Amino acid sequence: MKKFINSPETVVPDYLNGLVAAHPEILTLQANPRVLLRKGVGQHRKVGLVAGGGSGCEPLHTGFVGPGMLDAACPGEIFTSPVPDQIISATRAVNVGAGVVHIVKNFSGEVMNFGIAQEILAFENIHPITVLINDDCSIPDDDESAGRRGLGATVFVEKIAGASAHRGDSIDTVVRIARRANDRARTFSIGLNSCIPPARGKPIYTMGEDEMDIGIGISGSPGRERVPMRPARDIAEMLLQKVLGDLKPADGSQILTLISGLGGTPESELYILYGEVHQRLRAAGYDPAYALVGNYVTSLEQMGAALTVLELDDELAALWREPVHTSNLRWGM
Amino acid sequence: MKKFINSPETVVPDYLNGLVAAHPEILTLQANPRVLLRKGVGQHRKVGLVAGGGSGCEPLHTGFVGPGMLDAACPGEIFTSPVPDQIISATRAVNVGAGVVHIVKNFSGEVMNFGIAQEILAFENIHPITVLINDDCSIPDDDESAGRRGLGATVFVEKIAGASAHRGDSIDTVVRIARRANDRARTFSIGLNSCIPPARGKPIYTMGEDEMDIGIGISGSPGRERVPMRPARDIAEMLLQKVLGDLKPADGSQILTLISGLGGTPESELYILYGEVHQRLRAAGYDPAYALVGNYVTSLEQMGAALTVLELDDELAALWREPVHTSNLRWGM
Repeated sequence: MKKFINSPETVVPDYLNGLVAAHPEILTLQANPRVLLRKGVGQHRKVGLVAGGGSGCEPLHTGFVGPGMLDAACPGEIFTSPVPDQIISATRAVNVGAGVVHIVKNFSGEVMNFGIAQEILAFENIHPITVLINDDCSIPDDDESAGRRGLGATVFVEKIAGASAHRGDSIDTVVRIARRANDRARTFSIGLNSCIPPARGKPIYTMGEDEMDIGIGISGSPGRERVPMRPARDIAEMLLQKVLGDLKPADGSQILTLISGLGGTPESELYILYGEVHQRLRAAGYDPAYALVGNYVTSLEQMGAALTVLELDDELAALWREPVHTSNLRWGM
Repeated sequence: MKKFINSPETVVPDYLNGLVAAHPEILTLQANPRVLLRKGVGQHRKVGLVAGGGSGCEPLHTGFVGPGMLDAACPGEIFTSPVPDQIISATRAVNVGAGVVHIVKNFSGEVMNFGIAQEILAFENIHPITVLINDDCSIPDDDESAGRRGLGATVFVEKIAGASAHRGDSIDTVVRIARRANDRARTFSIGLNSCIPPARGKPIYTMGEDEMDIGIGISGSPGRERVPMRPARDIAEMLLQKVLGDLKPADGSQILTLISGLGGTPESELYILYGEVHQRLRAAGYDPAYALVGNYVTSLEQMGAALTVLELDDELAALWREPVHTSNLRWGM
């Protein structure tokens, strides 16, 4: 295993130390329990935004803490949900009397641990409201499964809800806007290989030389089907059919697109996919007005990509454009 | 070969189409010869900044075109210098009477083709001034070689010279500042595997399971020595010894650091390296005031990292902080 780490046990704290050292103007690290806080959190009355999840998916969520986005992130161990202690501590830190929102990806461990934290916080009369992210349309939307996973829409919800909280909206408004952003977003992902978790030291699974794995999640979970590798244009077409077929955006609507790499795919390939997606969105009569292309929701060094599409309305578009300052999403400040 | 491409022949134009589709507010693409231009170039009198190099090193240089940084980038084929026609066309486009600077990395093909372009432009009475980037301290600084290669310092010079040109400095000032930034920067790089150029379809070379390749360049060129893999702290120590031993910054000076991934290394590992570097810079009495951590100068999907250190002075630091708006470096606008 060739990784720039000191030991598998210290990957998460060593990463966080480096992140805070590089961005001291926006970040503060609390060591125990491990919580990454927006610098100056608690100084101004606003709705607090907390997210968390397994490490290894960077920049999610730690790369999105800062003015105009998250107030706190709770990084779990690699591919492991944060524990309730982290969530409780983060929630207390960002609770300044305007309410707290928990942005929770729909994974059973995450849902459970945020739930336990909320039960304990209730004794302190802190009642965070959960916004559940479940944009993964590779999973049927029925009662037979644990439901759809939270993937790329998380970045959009964190940005849009972050802008809403930053401008001083009430918790009811922040929650309504965040849920609307999630409801209007869908994601579909493709993996080209497996990643190597540091504690395991070898790939989680193997794949054929000419296979791609469609409908994968994050954290190294395999997909729903293996199919032969195809040119970028065919992959873009397939990804769009999956997300648009499920979302069914209104004719002519403004679209916010994310092409996220999974960590090991070069940026040039992600832009090639985006070019194909953009052209098809236009041909279908949509307005692909805004796009993010790069590594935003990853699984360590996995090769692959995910398409997230969000059908904007005027309010969501305005909140998307608002200034933001985090380590991995920044404009206007 | 598993890549999100349509064909090896169309990687560069397909990438550029996607890039411009995602960032129409700052970029314009000229198809033939292939030049990426800052939108609105030529509308205001300022020193024009042109850079170029082989594709496959994205975001260098295409990701750094926009207000406050480059006016034009000339992307060659994968790992191949741009041809003189591209450089001539880009120079004409950005030449609005205040002079043009060519930022040229010290690779023989790049130096030659910028040189040929300049000879031809002289007939039109356009006389660009070359700023040569040669920060790679893995190569001896003597007369026995083609000289030191241009690596991570390119990003710093493009940003700092871009800010100087953007605020309206004369060409003499822009060139003086750009050369000072290059002179005060050093880079050392480590590769953990080889990349796969699309037209080749397989790795350029192979490496042992536990080896790292030290003193590599970009474009898939191998390093100067293979050594056993080490923990991140030892690698950070080695990288710092190489760059500080060569640069010898003044005691207590402000340092701008870049930890650039080569394309296939997860961001968390880059921040682990940065944490180790930051701590050692402080312990050595320096002020690690600013840092960039991420994929900034890459070789497709290669795993590895490079450390660039720049000894700031007040003017360089102020120009570094100035607003910039490109696809891959953005703040304040």
